[in-house]
Amino acid sequence: MYEFDQDTRIEKESNLRFLSRVDAGWNIGDNPNGGYLISLVDRAIRDVVTYPDAVSLTTHFLRPGVAGEPCVIDVEIVRAGRTLTTVRANLSQQGKVRLVVMAAYADLAEPMGPDTDITVPERDMLEPEACIPRTGDLQGIDIALVNKLDVRIQPDLATPGESGVAEIAGWIRHKDGRQPDVSSLLLFVDCFPPSPLGALGAVGWVPSVELTVHVRCRPAPGWIKASLRTDDLTEGRMIETGCFWDSTGALVAQSRQLALVRD
Amino acid sequence: MYEFDQDTRIEKESNLRFLSRVDAGWNIGDNPNGGYLISLVDRAIRDVVTYPDAVSLTTHFLRPGVAGEPCVIDVEIVRAGRTLTTVRANLSQQGKVRLVVMAAYADLAEPMGPDTDITVPERDMLEPEACIPRTGDLQGIDIALVNKLDVRIQPDLATPGESGVAEIAGWIRHKDGRQPDVSSLLLFVDCFPPSPLGALGAVGWVPSVELTVHVRCRPAPGWIKASLRTDDLTEGRMIETGCFWDSTGALVAQSRQLALVRD
Repeated sequence: MYEFDQDTRIEKESNLRFLSRVDAGWNIGDNPNGGYLISLVDRAIRDVVTYPDAVSLTTHFLRPGVAGEPCVIDVEIVRAGRTLTTVRANLSQQGKVRLVVMAAYADLAEPMGPDTDITVPERDMLEPEACIPRTGDLQGIDIALVNKLDVRIQPDLATPGESGVAEIAGWIRHKDGRQPDVSSLLLFVDCFPPSPLGALGAVGWVPSVELTVHVRCRPAPGWIKASLRTDDLTEGRMIETGCFWDSTGALVAQSRQLALVRD
Repeated sequence: MYEFDQDTRIEKESNLRFLSRVDAGWNIGDNPNGGYLISLVDRAIRDVVTYPDAVSLTTHFLRPGVAGEPCVIDVEIVRAGRTLTTVRANLSQQGKVRLVVMAAYADLAEPMGPDTDITVPERDMLEPEACIPRTGDLQGIDIALVNKLDVRIQPDLATPGESGVAEIAGWIRHKDGRQPDVSSLLLFVDCFPPSPLGALGAVGWVPSVELTVHVRCRPAPGWIKASLRTDDLTEGRMIETGCFWDSTGALVAQSRQLALVRD
């Protein structure tokens, strides 16, 4: 069993309630990575709904998760429709809700309408071998997550304050050979350094207020290519947009988040 | 009293439950505009939370609203924090939930961190006087909403199938002289024709699955300038991104939605 599947195992307590444990191996500093916590919630939702794929998933982060501690995930079906099921879910630890999720699930193998050639062109980038592995040094913190995931950063964007642009671009994959799927994408979108790094210089912990992921299709095996840009950063509120492509060059997901940059 | 304020009046039934009525004057075809329904929910949330401004608001649209009929709005405080309050809310009619909202409210007059010059540059555009008023003719439907709102479209993007690009750009304001505020922005982001129009030709009703609005600052008086682009449209699932600037040229909001384009 791959690490990601092992560390997102859930136990059904009742029809809509699941128990799990937040593994410390996915930490960024002392806090569990937000994308990993979302993956736990996604796992519980997929146990409840008939559709396998998150197509739109929004998370509000209320409090940091607690690494190494058990968690409870509650799922509520808001509407089960013919092509989409809408759900809400919470992840709680120590009696406190850590994050709330609202999402639509569907079957990405089923077209919902016409196809077009409108898409986000693939970002031009150096190959993974020429990119720099993500380490905690960039942000001055310990990042356990990079033992689970291979995260590479385009070299010209990897040094704080050097590029002058608020973009991070690079590659990501599971380190143990697990191939990416829709659940991986929900994790991957939150695994790169904060994109204002190249413009602002060293930035510490950038807490996400809200993160929305749109999954466009199931990814092909191989690396996922990522580009994340901060479009706007005003008075400490940052809006970051991510695009993610699979090894065939297909756009597989887009993300957008509101996060806080402290003084 | 301005029309927008009149048509979003709510009556408190209990601490967290409000009654109102969906006015037929904000219809697109037979359905109430989604942004107008969000405005009703926003009004109820603002009655409950201490912070005045939606900074991130996500809506899942489950069923069309029913014009001319009463509605019930239920608000739930998920977490009241020191700088943000997170809420969930529903709008129901005829015993069925029409839309669910998850949002963070804050005080946009209070900076949350450092300011920077990172922002989305204002889109270059013809003046409102040189733009074309939105009418139902573009989509072959009756649009009551344009009696309440002055919506103008950049002429080179206004004809279905002509521009070849999936962008709509233009201007918007309340028709009765009401100045824009944060609540107006939640409405305005959903009042332009579907942005794939110029690329695909005539498109009918494009139901939104999910719409997220990030409000960046309170708008100055005057017109709001808008640019909405569909970044990706695959198998009927469309991801549209909007940017909105006030009369001083400041970016005031960004939007992103997942919507369905039918064959």
